[in-house]
Amino acid sequence: MNVTVRGRRQHFRTVTFDRAQNAVRLIEQRLLPHEFKIVATKNFRATAAAITDMVVRGAGAIGATAAYGLAQGALAFRGNDLKKFSAHVETVYQVLKNARPTAIDPVNAMNAVRATMRTGRTVAEQQSLALAAAEEFAREDVQHCEAIGRHGAKLIRNGMKILTHCNAGWLAFVDIGTATAPLYAAQTQGKKFHVFCDETRPRSQGATLTAWELAQQNISHQIIADNAAGHLMQRGEIDLVIVGSDRTLGRTGEVANKIGTYTKAVLAARHKIPFYVAIPLSTIDWNLKRGCNIPIEERSEHEVLGAWGINARGKREYVRVANPTGGARNPGFDVTPAELVTGIITPVEIFKPQELWKWRGELGFAG
Amino acid sequence: MNVTVRGRRQHFRTVTFDRAQNAVRLIEQRLLPHEFKIVATKNFRATAAAITDMVVRGAGAIGATAAYGLAQGALAFRGNDLKKFSAHVETVYQVLKNARPTAIDPVNAMNAVRATMRTGRTVAEQQSLALAAAEEFAREDVQHCEAIGRHGAKLIRNGMKILTHCNAGWLAFVDIGTATAPLYAAQTQGKKFHVFCDETRPRSQGATLTAWELAQQNISHQIIADNAAGHLMQRGEIDLVIVGSDRTLGRTGEVANKIGTYTKAVLAARHKIPFYVAIPLSTIDWNLKRGCNIPIEERSEHEVLGAWGINARGKREYVRVANPTGGARNPGFDVTPAELVTGIITPVEIFKPQELWKWRGELGFAG
Repeated sequence: MNVTVRGRRQHFRTVTFDRAQNAVRLIEQRLLPHEFKIVATKNFRATAAAITDMVVRGAGAIGATAAYGLAQGALAFRGNDLKKFSAHVETVYQVLKNARPTAIDPVNAMNAVRATMRTGRTVAEQQSLALAAAEEFAREDVQHCEAIGRHGAKLIRNGMKILTHCNAGWLAFVDIGTATAPLYAAQTQGKKFHVFCDETRPRSQGATLTAWELAQQNISHQIIADNAAGHLMQRGEIDLVIVGSDRTLGRTGEVANKIGTYTKAVLAARHKIPFYVAIPLSTIDWNLKRGCNIPIEERSEHEVLGAWGINARGKREYVRVANPTGGARNPGFDVTPAELVTGIITPVEIFKPQELWKWRGELGFAG
Repeated sequence: MNVTVRGRRQHFRTVTFDRAQNAVRLIEQRLLPHEFKIVATKNFRATAAAITDMVVRGAGAIGATAAYGLAQGALAFRGNDLKKFSAHVETVYQVLKNARPTAIDPVNAMNAVRATMRTGRTVAEQQSLALAAAEEFAREDVQHCEAIGRHGAKLIRNGMKILTHCNAGWLAFVDIGTATAPLYAAQTQGKKFHVFCDETRPRSQGATLTAWELAQQNISHQIIADNAAGHLMQRGEIDLVIVGSDRTLGRTGEVANKIGTYTKAVLAARHKIPFYVAIPLSTIDWNLKRGCNIPIEERSEHEVLGAWGINARGKREYVRVANPTGGARNPGFDVTPAELVTGIITPVEIFKPQELWKWRGELGFAG
């Protein structure tokens, strides 16, 4: 998407590859929204560290980063010994896999790159195929988000007020995003609408990342406390909800997403407001049979007890808000049952959550 | 309630009067939970400023502060001229009334003090009656909270997990509080339970004040992001919700309270979790006919865009979390319909919200 840097509009993707420098170029997301900066990782270990340290986050974005990281590692190999090369690639794979051990996207992305790569007969061929496959992965990520945008934009009418939660935006993918894709597509079609961004405590991705994205694209928006959406719905000020998902169960249509998503779905159902979930096919889990079996990560209480921001002197700082002796519970995700979800916006079409299983062939289920 | 200050347990009330110094003594709530400090206001203008600047906040607490402030102003008058004295008291009344012009409690409290005071025949008599009436107001505030505690404690069983929102604690009243009164009473009865405190963005009164109160009383508790309650309810981890109210409609049972209360009520109803509202009689509005006519204050976007806390060097600081160009909507309150409220815990008894009107005689409706 376009970003205004020192007064000039420029096109950026969240993740790209610099062939000349053999470097992965990433938007440094930890500095947003206060500073926009591109970092280049010089080798695959630095790329893995960028994933671990959350320089880059979001399903598609870390998938593409790992894919490029694998190619980067492969390209750094000197020599023609295919056996030594394969051992080296295995090391690269493991280092990148362990960068965020619970995430599935880096593994899927690297498996695709490795499968293509292995069709090469020489080290040089495999190196070249690795990069081509990583580029292909990134291209597909963008195409899928574009398709989500095409389908989702049909839901948006002029004058609508739309609620979103957390960031399933272009910063979470290579470009365009999932929950934001319908917004960007509708804007391109000339539609006018207003977006409420849940701030999304405790990590505030809505206030920091989604609001920044929308500001860059000149989409009318306001940040609200997570507490405020119910009141706005009561007063008729929200017409549509679109969120992303970290994992959607193909068998039941249950949606795991950032903590607070379930609450918004319950409120939307009460107020008969359409509640849509935009997802790439890679996040559909075709195996798990029940949403209550999705493991919910309990994160550091530090996140709940305070906030990161910039102080009056422009310095980034953590302040502790809460009583020091008060502990915290910090579940990172929740699970929304299918009955509360109006539709799942996929790159293929919009489906009822209960019908994902029926359309599993079209949705890429190979089992 | 008791507070541990430099290792010693001491009893404090939120608001007291120092007769020797003719000063109102207040817990400086803006410093909590990071620092515990008592401030003494030297004259009625300083008392009014403490209300305006939110050194003291909460319905009962500002009511008692204004009552004492009126007595303080009256006591400062020198001379025997009753006409001049009355003019002076009128000035004091107006200054204190304008300290928080939309709040009803200071006005009700001062009207009670003024009515008693006017039965005196001399300046000295009126001065003395003013202070007696203010003391009586504070004493009644405490008694009402104690009665709420007695009724509400019946709802609490051993092992329960209880959710509360915002701070309707002893810091919001002269002592004991409303939503917290059942907790303190149940603890005195030897019951063991756990409290989840919604952090209550954007002003975080749950994370700062309620968690501090509970920590001082050694009540087991954890702070949660406002987003997390739905997930905890889904997993069966919440058995009871108790909140306070800024205004409850006597005719309909609708409850206006801190933004986010409505959301918790909707979630509780879905999960069949009892949802109680604890209130003093002074917050019942017997006039208004419909909850949608309750004016909802829109507060500064500054609150949503950042957070107050203490930094690593122990200094109090505001950090801006959000994208600087992102605006915010910040409604301060919401309205919960009677159908979502299991019961209203009053000093008289626990009532169904729909039955307040039927019991209006017992509940002090004079109309």
